[in-house]
Amino acid sequence: MTSDPDFNLFHPQPLLIVLSGPSGAGKDTVLQRMKERNMPFHFVITATTRPKRENEVHGKDYFFVSKDEFARMIEADELLEYAIVYNDYKGIPKQQVREALASGQDVVMRIDVQGAATIRKLAPEALLIFLTTTSEEEMVSRLKARKSENSAGLALRIATARQELKRIDEFDYVIVNSDFRLDEAVDTLAAIIQAEHHRVKPRKVSL
Amino acid sequence: MTSDPDFNLFHPQPLLIVLSGPSGAGKDTVLQRMKERNMPFHFVITATTRPKRENEVHGKDYFFVSKDEFARMIEADELLEYAIVYNDYKGIPKQQVREALASGQDVVMRIDVQGAATIRKLAPEALLIFLTTTSEEEMVSRLKARKSENSAGLALRIATARQELKRIDEFDYVIVNSDFRLDEAVDTLAAIIQAEHHRVKPRKVSL
Repeated sequence: MTSDPDFNLFHPQPLLIVLSGPSGAGKDTVLQRMKERNMPFHFVITATTRPKRENEVHGKDYFFVSKDEFARMIEADELLEYAIVYNDYKGIPKQQVREALASGQDVVMRIDVQGAATIRKLAPEALLIFLTTTSEEEMVSRLKARKSENSAGLALRIATARQELKRIDEFDYVIVNSDFRLDEAVDTLAAIIQAEHHRVKPRKVSL
Repeated sequence: MTSDPDFNLFHPQPLLIVLSGPSGAGKDTVLQRMKERNMPFHFVITATTRPKRENEVHGKDYFFVSKDEFARMIEADELLEYAIVYNDYKGIPKQQVREALASGQDVVMRIDVQGAATIRKLAPEALLIFLTTTSEEEMVSRLKARKSENSAGLALRIATARQELKRIDEFDYVIVNSDFRLDEAVDTLAAIIQAEHHRVKPRKVSL
């Protein structure tokens, strides 16, 4: 068996893991907890033009760049995917993802629902995970608690989230991230990744 | 969301889990450890005409039945699947599986590779897991250690196991159950089952 080159159980393909879901589902919170647990993944650092929030660190949570710098990255084809999200740009640096995959690491990226659909087109074998709340009310109350929006911005976010909830069918897995069960959500995510490494037909991603 | 009848996250479909793989891969050992951990599954009790091994209990490990009784079960269409395995019959009682699934429980059955293929035909959405050893040598040494065979029986088992190893592609997942990592194999199995309960498109089994 071990001499059979097709018997590839011991060198699993690295996974391209997309953590998505509506605004308010808790993508950042789940990612934060994954990092706290020192999970052995490459967490993609997204480039964004949006203002830094108080608790965020440049080069760790995001690359906070100017609109001019973002335009340059688009021109130079340095982004795997980018989108305007609530008047700000967010994009995934392509080279960063390629290098992590090439080194054999699983890559985790946080991305909005529209962006996840783009990644699916670029890499049909990406692993798409939809994070959601127990109820729409919980989602709305989280968005309100965030207080980073004026009321028009909040209304837009809620309307968008309602639309995004309808796109769950484009994803492989769904995880409910309820307020009091963050660790359960992270455990489920870990189980999904572990399971995917034991598929007989591994997901082969090339970018 | 909670009022949407299609939003079925909270009533996951029960799974029909087939634990298979060549003789010597450790199906019984893995099942035994799952039971010791009180995992919340219905473990199917197989009917067999083979002699009871010393450490086995009738009605717990297997239903040990006579060949006449087995013939009656076949005639009465009481078996989901049955096969001659090394001159003895083994079969899965149909009603037992149906009742467990109807009660919402995940059902775990241990079955040989040929039987797993039959279950796939009956229930395409069954979850098929291939258990194997780290190497062919490990498999052979386990079969030898079992000492329940004469040398002709052992040679037959080894030859069959070699053929069965080639059918891995018919399965969904593969788990390597190496001698010193039984608990790791059981953890992986648990992760696979947990992950499968979070698929956006659940496996719907009807029998």
